[in-house]
Amino acid sequence: MRWRRPGRRAADPGVVAPVLDELAGQAVAGAHRAIARLITLVEDERADVNAEVAAALTPHAGRARVIGLTGPPGVGKSTTTSALITALRAAGHRVGVLAIDPSSPFSGGALLGDRIRMTEHAVDDGVFIRSMATRGQLGGLAVATPQAVRVLDAAGFDVVLVETVGVGQSEVDVVRLADTTVVLLAPGMGDGIQAAKAGVLEIADVFVVNKADRDGAEVTVRDLEQMIAMSRRGIRGPSWRQPVVRTVAADGSGITDMLGALDRHASWLLDTGELERRRARRAAEEIQAIALRGLRAELGRLSGGDRLEELAREVAVGRTDSYAAAARLVDLLKRA
Amino acid sequence: MRWRRPGRRAADPGVVAPVLDELAGQAVAGAHRAIARLITLVEDERADVNAEVAAALTPHAGRARVIGLTGPPGVGKSTTTSALITALRAAGHRVGVLAIDPSSPFSGGALLGDRIRMTEHAVDDGVFIRSMATRGQLGGLAVATPQAVRVLDAAGFDVVLVETVGVGQSEVDVVRLADTTVVLLAPGMGDGIQAAKAGVLEIADVFVVNKADRDGAEVTVRDLEQMIAMSRRGIRGPSWRQPVVRTVAADGSGITDMLGALDRHASWLLDTGELERRRARRAAEEIQAIALRGLRAELGRLSGGDRLEELAREVAVGRTDSYAAAARLVDLLKRA
Repeated sequence: MRWRRPGRRAADPGVVAPVLDELAGQAVAGAHRAIARLITLVEDERADVNAEVAAALTPHAGRARVIGLTGPPGVGKSTTTSALITALRAAGHRVGVLAIDPSSPFSGGALLGDRIRMTEHAVDDGVFIRSMATRGQLGGLAVATPQAVRVLDAAGFDVVLVETVGVGQSEVDVVRLADTTVVLLAPGMGDGIQAAKAGVLEIADVFVVNKADRDGAEVTVRDLEQMIAMSRRGIRGPSWRQPVVRTVAADGSGITDMLGALDRHASWLLDTGELERRRARRAAEEIQAIALRGLRAELGRLSGGDRLEELAREVAVGRTDSYAAAARLVDLLKRA
Repeated sequence: MRWRRPGRRAADPGVVAPVLDELAGQAVAGAHRAIARLITLVEDERADVNAEVAAALTPHAGRARVIGLTGPPGVGKSTTTSALITALRAAGHRVGVLAIDPSSPFSGGALLGDRIRMTEHAVDDGVFIRSMATRGQLGGLAVATPQAVRVLDAAGFDVVLVETVGVGQSEVDVVRLADTTVVLLAPGMGDGIQAAKAGVLEIADVFVVNKADRDGAEVTVRDLEQMIAMSRRGIRGPSWRQPVVRTVAADGSGITDMLGALDRHASWLLDTGELERRRARRAAEEIQAIALRGLRAELGRLSGGDRLEELAREVAVGRTDSYAAAARLVDLLKRA
């Protein structure tokens, strides 16, 4: 495994298609260095490079199970991810992990410490772990994450885990687009969980109550079960009922149950045709995010000259308003 | 003061310009009900409504001091905001407050409790407090916040406080666009602050170390002072040196000092011409955000038909890739 902080190496300005094809070929063959390099290129968000990478890798992608993991801070996401990796490896799967860094300037500290625990997989060639830090603004994560998943998928990892710290909506949106989304909770988190129930129920396919040996675990499980039962009123016919799994990730308890729940969900996805629907939905959201990103870049180029500055000054002194100014910018873009 | 949770009342579908003009007139005259109604309309993000509101209010705006307040959870932001409101009122200022809700599904709980403490200002007609919750995705906050600030500004509030819980980049981006940005910290937050230093230094005009009666407060203050001194190496000529103010907001200690620091920053902004530059920059970012939002809506309308679904299915089965599909969408938009 190669564990690397993002952003160390910027994309070469002179990257050209033949080099990308070579890198893509090496990544598809499973070379960790090529995989790492491709993800760095992807993070750099150059549209032309990303288009080449997608074109080269899409024919090799679509085979991996994509599992999203999220939950509030303090529930033990990194420990659970690490235990899950161990279990998946024991079952013979190659595992790629994307750890989405929070974009808040206030939450940079804790994460690094958490990540370091994952070094237990550092000598395992069947595991590739990568932190991704994009600013998460205006769709950055929405574009970079599916592309990074595509790199790992095309590189032949059987399972791609996408873990987020779950602090912001954009991070949650990212895991929501997995084939299977796991929401981790822990006992004793009080009102936060109560308030979060509606939102959490929407995105979860599997609930995991970690630290299940602690006081209050049964209350958390019962609350979740009640919430799930309530949400299912009025549903007819077969549908997925979200299981609630108890784990103590620190000593590995319950991880086999978690793996079982994930496998049952994978079978359900296949059997019902839901997998295809989810992947089409994921593709639709990705296409829109890419298109928007491109339009944003065009807008930035248009605005790069004096035109935006001039409009902004007019707004600042009240000579025009910002909506009228924006309409003029959009007109310029369409005429360009 | 009227304190209302957002989203209770959706925008009337049949709102037309004459009604908006009337509402705008009432808001400019300071009627709380009209102000609340306008902010609800603004949150609803209908581009046509927002354009009308901006056109009606811009001539009346630009007089308020806009102060942003942010900091990690647990530093006492609501208590500090509340104490600051009291001090500003005592100085004869009318105060509008926008409390930006976090967009994470995991952090809905604590906020409401914090807010309720602010009801001490509930009977004061010179205070208007409003929570805003937008999903924060793809520039939602970037569009709604400046417009809501415009409503309060045009309504004649001398000071508009924009408070965020500071969990996500988009929230931080929002306060960064204030005339003056206050970053609150508290002692004993450990590595988080260390890691956050670089990002925090960039956005802060004034640092407040709240809970300054606790152990470790002097260490936090000294760390901040050192960081500020380091960042100023190589700077020539006069520039703003970020003050570090100690407060115990719960008993009001230090709030006069905080107010003093804010006043000094306000004078500095005026004297140096920085106020004008900041407001032009804020206008530029708002214009871009509005333009992008409009393009996104157009993309959504284009995608509403079968076209996007069709493209997404082709991507999901690997017949084309998402970047090629996005390019086709953008072409459609420009030709529309």
